[in-house]
Amino acid sequence: MVGLTSKEVRIGMVGYQFMGKMHSHAYRDIPFFFDPKVKPVLQAISGRNESAVKEAAEKMGWASYETDWRRLIERDDIDVIDIVTPNHTHAEIAIAAAEAGKHIITEKPLALTVEEAERMYEAVKKANVTHMICHNYRFVPAVQYARKLIEEGRLGRIFHVRANYLQDFIIDPSFPLVWRLKKEVSGSGALGDIGAHSIDLARFLVGDFKELVSTMETFVKERPIGEMSGGLSAKAEGDEMGEVTVDDATCFLARFENGALGVFEATRFAGGNRNKNKFEINGEKGSIRWDMENMNNLEVYFADDEPGLQGFRLINVTEEVHPYVGAYWPAGHIIGYEHSFIHLLYEFLNGIVEGTSPKPNFEDGVINQKILAAVEKSAETKQWITL
Amino acid sequence: MVGLTSKEVRIGMVGYQFMGKMHSHAYRDIPFFFDPKVKPVLQAISGRNESAVKEAAEKMGWASYETDWRRLIERDDIDVIDIVTPNHTHAEIAIAAAEAGKHIITEKPLALTVEEAERMYEAVKKANVTHMICHNYRFVPAVQYARKLIEEGRLGRIFHVRANYLQDFIIDPSFPLVWRLKKEVSGSGALGDIGAHSIDLARFLVGDFKELVSTMETFVKERPIGEMSGGLSAKAEGDEMGEVTVDDATCFLARFENGALGVFEATRFAGGNRNKNKFEINGEKGSIRWDMENMNNLEVYFADDEPGLQGFRLINVTEEVHPYVGAYWPAGHIIGYEHSFIHLLYEFLNGIVEGTSPKPNFEDGVINQKILAAVEKSAETKQWITL
Amino acid sequence: MVGLTSKEVRIGMVGYQFMGKMHSHAYRDIPFFFDPKVKPVLQAISGRNESAVKEAAEKMGWASYETDWRRLIERDDIDVIDIVTPNHTHAEIAIAAAEAGKHIITEKPLALTVEEAERMYEAVKKANVTHMICHNYRFVPAVQYARKLIEEGRLGRIFHVRANYLQDFIIDPSFPLVWRLKKEVSGSGALGDIGAHSIDLARFLVGDFKELVSTMETFVKERPIGEMSGGLSAKAEGDEMGEVTVDDATCFLARFENGALGVFEATRFAGGNRNKNKFEINGEKGSIRWDMENMNNLEVYFADDEPGLQGFRLINVTEEVHPYVGAYWPAGHIIGYEHSFIHLLYEFLNGIVEGTSPKPNFEDGVINQKILAAVEKSAETKQWITL
Amino acid sequence: MVGLTSKEVRIGMVGYQFMGKMHSHAYRDIPFFFDPKVKPVLQAISGRNESAVKEAAEKMGWASYETDWRRLIERDDIDVIDIVTPNHTHAEIAIAAAEAGKHIITEKPLALTVEEAERMYEAVKKANVTHMICHNYRFVPAVQYARKLIEEGRLGRIFHVRANYLQDFIIDPSFPLVWRLKKEVSGSGALGDIGAHSIDLARFLVGDFKELVSTMETFVKERPIGEMSGGLSAKAEGDEMGEVTVDDATCFLARFENGALGVFEATRFAGGNRNKNKFEINGEKGSIRWDMENMNNLEVYFADDEPGLQGFRLINVTEEVHPYVGAYWPAGHIIGYEHSFIHLLYEFLNGIVEGTSPKPNFEDGVINQKILAAVEKSAETKQWITL
Repeated sequence: MVGLTSKEVRIGMVGYQFMGKMHSHAYRDIPFFFDPKVKPVLQAISGRNESAVKEAAEKMGWASYETDWRRLIERDDIDVIDIVTPNHTHAEIAIAAAEAGKHIITEKPLALTVEEAERMYEAVKKANVTHMICHNYRFVPAVQYARKLIEEGRLGRIFHVRANYLQDFIIDPSFPLVWRLKKEVSGSGALGDIGAHSIDLARFLVGDFKELVSTMETFVKERPIGEMSGGLSAKAEGDEMGEVTVDDATCFLARFENGALGVFEATRFAGGNRNKNKFEINGEKGSIRWDMENMNNLEVYFADDEPGLQGFRLINVTEEVHPYVGAYWPAGHIIGYEHSFIHLLYEFLNGIVEGTSPKPNFEDGVINQKILAAVEKSAETKQWITL
Repeated sequence: MVGLTSKEVRIGMVGYQFMGKMHSHAYRDIPFFFDPKVKPVLQAISGRNESAVKEAAEKMGWASYETDWRRLIERDDIDVIDIVTPNHTHAEIAIAAAEAGKHIITEKPLALTVEEAERMYEAVKKANVTHMICHNYRFVPAVQYARKLIEEGRLGRIFHVRANYLQDFIIDPSFPLVWRLKKEVSGSGALGDIGAHSIDLARFLVGDFKELVSTMETFVKERPIGEMSGGLSAKAEGDEMGEVTVDDATCFLARFENGALGVFEATRFAGGNRNKNKFEINGEKGSIRWDMENMNNLEVYFADDEPGLQGFRLINVTEEVHPYVGAYWPAGHIIGYEHSFIHLLYEFLNGIVEGTSPKPNFEDGVINQKILAAVEKSAETKQWITL
Repeated sequence: MVGLTSKEVRIGMVGYQFMGKMHSHAYRDIPFFFDPKVKPVLQAISGRNESAVKEAAEKMGWASYETDWRRLIERDDIDVIDIVTPNHTHAEIAIAAAEAGKHIITEKPLALTVEEAERMYEAVKKANVTHMICHNYRFVPAVQYARKLIEEGRLGRIFHVRANYLQDFIIDPSFPLVWRLKKEVSGSGALGDIGAHSIDLARFLVGDFKELVSTMETFVKERPIGEMSGGLSAKAEGDEMGEVTVDDATCFLARFENGALGVFEATRFAGGNRNKNKFEINGEKGSIRWDMENMNNLEVYFADDEPGLQGFRLINVTEEVHPYVGAYWPAGHIIGYEHSFIHLLYEFLNGIVEGTSPKPNFEDGVINQKILAAVEKSAETKQWITL
Repeated sequence: MVGLTSKEVRIGMVGYQFMGKMHSHAYRDIPFFFDPKVKPVLQAISGRNESAVKEAAEKMGWASYETDWRRLIERDDIDVIDIVTPNHTHAEIAIAAAEAGKHIITEKPLALTVEEAERMYEAVKKANVTHMICHNYRFVPAVQYARKLIEEGRLGRIFHVRANYLQDFIIDPSFPLVWRLKKEVSGSGALGDIGAHSIDLARFLVGDFKELVSTMETFVKERPIGEMSGGLSAKAEGDEMGEVTVDDATCFLARFENGALGVFEATRFAGGNRNKNKFEINGEKGSIRWDMENMNNLEVYFADDEPGLQGFRLINVTEEVHPYVGAYWPAGHIIGYEHSFIHLLYEFLNGIVEGTSPKPNFEDGVINQKILAAVEKSAETKQWITL
């Protein structure tokens, strides 16, 4: 483990696209809005295309760059490895980083397989470094507040969770076969990319999964070869077609250890839903509803409200009493998507100083990976799978 | 079959509680708002408690009453038997009515078992009478309009349906063990009472079910003995407890013949949802969302709307161009729950004159019953069931 | 005054279009759902077009008809005169009815002028008959419940009311010059037709107006001659144009006796709003929001809710504890526009037996008329007008 | 005017509280997300309390600080003066800055009086520097998009604008008499603080005001002496009371040059509305609705949508075709309040290089100030005021 002798921690980030931009921005904003126990220094990023990585480093304020991530890990002036590359690279990079004693933060899902995930977790445990996985939605203030209400027993015994993560960016069959649609690179499709978030949120809010049954579908089985052109946009490179090897949509039923029932759906084929990440939780004493498209709002129902005056309260989670948001603007002035990463990485920085690995960490990553694997196995075998 | 020599058809209704009141009201309103091919005459109702049935007849405008439904069927001055009694009585009454040549309308679900349902369907076919089952939600104007859009291909190939029917009236463990919670009377719990509606709507809007997998749960396993006191209210009769023999909640995944995926949930344990019957359908060209609590609204998304201006349209389905509503008030003046029954029974009356059995009829009832049975079997066996 | 020696009261209705249909339906439904102290008998309607009035009588269940409203008033077998004709006829009919000792219910606004309204009120007082005016929105359960909360002090001192009544049915300049657009028949345009409802609601919920300032506009100054064809639809009769002599839109600011500020807007030129009758009320302890397009919902905010959990509650006003709705269906099963008339006329029938004139009655009609007149005068003089 | 010989422009900011934090953050984010023609350098801030200003400079990343704003203006290494101090200081600082040839950006409202505002505008014109005023809401992507639709004629002739800016942070009478409640410091209360935004938005979207009539109210006339403690929070300093000399609420009606009617309301007494800045615009061909609490959404209605399918579209203004948002995240990933300042200051920086003063600039500030003055004069005189 890197001994922290100063009040700064030097970040080395592998990758620099959508999530690289997001993490870079978050590191810059953390000390502006919060007082982390250590300040992040944007030390270096790596990428294979030199001109592109150089441009990215300049644009985003990184002090240097490398064209091989191995070089990043070798450098003594790097304390943290932040992994924002496609999923199939996470394991190799993370294990090498752990062996070099770097603290590690990685995008989700942790790995392509449970075996990989477990090796990663072993590596960070052995190295005794701080580790986290970027399930950023946990850190939306409304979600944190939902967790607080549940922990305090305000919902009582939980009966139901229903979680949808709906997108629509690949409905058009001419959308190309980007890396997110290749199993060997991404591990899975809608399941691992967005369903993984719903799984993590359910574990955060409801508890441990016990068993599940699933079904998966690939509605468009062939697509033109092509690449991402930024964010979730992409363009085809020609007429050549390739096979889509991941799920377009995954649905599953689950039972939780505490007796709750879960209904989950992750799809990229729900027209009109650009990024509809939502959940509802029903308990004996109350219910909660949340939707990322209105991420500052939390709907809360209490069964013991006065008769006649019972109904979901639309709470704008932007007040000083709410988690994190006191650092920003007055009540009612909403924040956006990027703030969930600011909060997550703020906790990560504090964890480094405290010698802890705030949740969700690699242990959570392994558990989530097992659930992803169970979902896939259930879809193949058409059986319920016990976790 | 009763020959219709006049412009009136004489109704005999078995039962007179919640749904009896609803049907009575609908018959009274039909000729006021519409021009049915035949006018309903509220001829007689039957019930075992003479003072109660007499009072109900007077209150609701029925010309006479009986204390035995068999007497109703024997009467020559009755053309139609309308069955609004608990589920376990449907088969016997319907078969007797069919044998007596009466046209039949019955509340849902059709029966307790597939075998019963099939016998009922055989009986009406043999008698050549008009028959329907009261899946009233099909007849909400917004739902009819959704169907029209789908039939016209406005949504294209269907990928997804997600349907929730959420209630919360029995969360309190002191809510008594009413007939709706006894398998021998109701057949099933949330599944048959409300899930059956979602199933019928999915068949109406998406098409035939191919296979499904389910899970069911009874969260409160014992309740005090007691009876319904009207609507969905009830009171316990004392300290004696009895076993709840039906599901409090049922969730299932389905695949449709046309390749669509379905996610269904029916529960009486979703706090804050008094009667939240909702669905979303996603297709290649568009999506639809609907919710009974705002039943006059339909949300419609079209993928081919101008870029930048794409989004769900909130349509108030109260205009002359929309189904049924031209019979009422000017655009924007909303209608309520009861109108779905007015429309359904209006179609039933026309069916009698035309010699047809408008959908959903007993054939649909049988199919729905098979799906209900498959859901129960899947929950028991933990297997996918092919329909 | 007609002595009520039986348990029935015989209605004579002048007019039979949109509101005639509405009132007829309400009378039919009242004894079905409620237990009024006296039952209404649909005795006779009148209209100048014999074939049309005859057809309407048959369709709506009236026992007889007349082609001259004066004949209706002469008849001994009529206890109540219900006036649903255009506004310019209200005064003459109501005064004649009062002089004949009939109880009177009339559509709004009461009259064309304050002077007329006052004569009408004098006549009913002198005749000692029961009188009401059909400001039906008071009788929506959510509105009644809002009133109850305010009366109980749950909102504390009232600071603000903002009320919009937005329609869009005459934006198209080819919509014809129907009676609603002629001052000599309707008295005013958006102001008297829909703004009058907002005024009555504000008086009901907030209290007495003290002073106001207004502006009015006629956006389309000429239209083709034509007639209503039902509801709010209409068709032009040819190429001939006529002058629109009423307001298309009226806006005004008001101060109330209790210190509250009011902002009002009534318009038929707000595209996308078929019948958006809405208000918000803000008080020291809480706030209320309501919208007729979702009439079963009431949004309520309490300032003393627990910090962090403050927000508007979305209450579905369909529970037994809520006004009127216990007479219908279980909680969550919504009712529609027509029920507001059922409740109003139910109170009217009870008032006849009790010898009272439930509010809003002709006294309210006079006060409302004075406010309408003040709005018009302010628009002309560009001065604040004290009431 | 400062000649720009480099690709950097050096900012000197007067003040460092709520808006100072906001502007600082925006300058940091601009080059990260956009490619401005010149990069901002956070050169120096000024404030009277040395320890506080020093701490703020460090926290927010400013290179230096001053304890007297005059010193900031004297410095040669400052190209821009950014004024985020209370309103009564804007004029003196801006005029001095202009005379020193600095480009100027100031918070709104421009000044306390029209006379002050005009002197400021004269000064910047004479100095030929770039100038803007921070009406940030113009720069919310949904608002920019609304403007684009209106400019393209998609709404046709405009009939109505209704704009509310509702807050509730001073309803409690124990909230202290902070600077925002003192006329000599703030100029006015709700009117200048939030109503000014609605006025600017109306000018941006609808056009020039022609005349108006208003009413203003101070519901709580005395408050304990006290100060802001950050954002919109504050605490009393003791028992001493002082007079509130500004409006708690202002309502006004307006007529626009193009014939549209406007209804405006600004209040800090609308419980449950933390920062509800909303507007609706109705035109011949369509309507628009927007609300800052859901700032990424724009509701758009088109009258020429297919009959039956007309309704407000809920557009998530986060797509590449929408203004500014292509610089951030994929569609559906929402942004927050602070981005409106990023966009505004991005335009300001470009204006410096281009030698222009993007709107809204001091000329708009003068016009807005005249409207604020007219609102106040109308409230005093109870007359319509022509602009």
